[in-house]
Amino acid sequence: MTFVSDLFAIALGGSIGAVLRYLITLTVVSAPLSGWLTLHGSVGTTLANLLGCCALGGLFQFSQALVASDWVATGWAASLAHPRTLLAVRIGVLGSLTTFSTLIGETAVFASQGRILASSMLLGINVIAGWCLFWAAAAVVRNWTS
Amino acid sequence: MTFVSDLFAIALGGSIGAVLRYLITLTVVSAPLSGWLTLHGSVGTTLANLLGCCALGGLFQFSQALVASDWVATGWAASLAHPRTLLAVRIGVLGSLTTFSTLIGETAVFASQGRILASSMLLGINVIAGWCLFWAAAAVVRNWTS
Repeated sequence: MTFVSDLFAIALGGSIGAVLRYLITLTVVSAPLSGWLTLHGSVGTTLANLLGCCALGGLFQFSQALVASDWVATGWAASLAHPRTLLAVRIGVLGSLTTFSTLIGETAVFASQGRILASSMLLGINVIAGWCLFWAAAAVVRNWTS
Repeated sequence: MTFVSDLFAIALGGSIGAVLRYLITLTVVSAPLSGWLTLHGSVGTTLANLLGCCALGGLFQFSQALVASDWVATGWAASLAHPRTLLAVRIGVLGSLTTFSTLIGETAVFASQGRILASSMLLGINVIAGWCLFWAAAAVVRNWTS
């Protein structure tokens, strides 16, 4: 039953993450400024990806702090600290909020149209900003849990 | 109601994608050969990502063929051709089967441990193989729908 409950938690988290990503993309596409951006279709995916990397960095450091004996979660952090909740948030929500296939599809189509600069910029921004936000969020949580 | 139904379709697809990704990761981690791979924790994520890129490439070409006037979907392809089904599969299942945050998290942690080669190999394999599989699947579907 534990395994089935884990799967249900991941399914619930996954549905939330996918819907959030779709809503972010819709919001970006309909934003007044989006017409100015040549890559506007991909900005939503990039925003969802960067948000997910930032949240995962914080969660990574949170999990590290849980393992450390000198820090105990209290309040809402204690509820988040349950292994199944961590699984639902990490694998479910954040795993599904961010997407790799759409990013690859968009950059591959740009490259096939000869828009090599747009393609590599999109990929570069996702990877570099993703790494920076992952570690920045981890640093904030390290400060909070120490 | 159309919008709410779209969100439900994406939520359902997202829960399927997230659970599939988790099951792929569990299978890879428990596979007999996985202990030989220094990156074995990331192989599951990479497999899910590449599978998603391959499927998205096929779906991309399928959607292109639907727009073309000389091809009409029949049989199971006709059911897949419904806009809401396409949304559920593309944004829901494939968007959630693949993940960007986990890939960034894994490569960022490798890089922070000084394992620069492992980090860049992992990123490079995901991107290059993802692109190749995207176009290979598109070519197969182009052949089928022409």
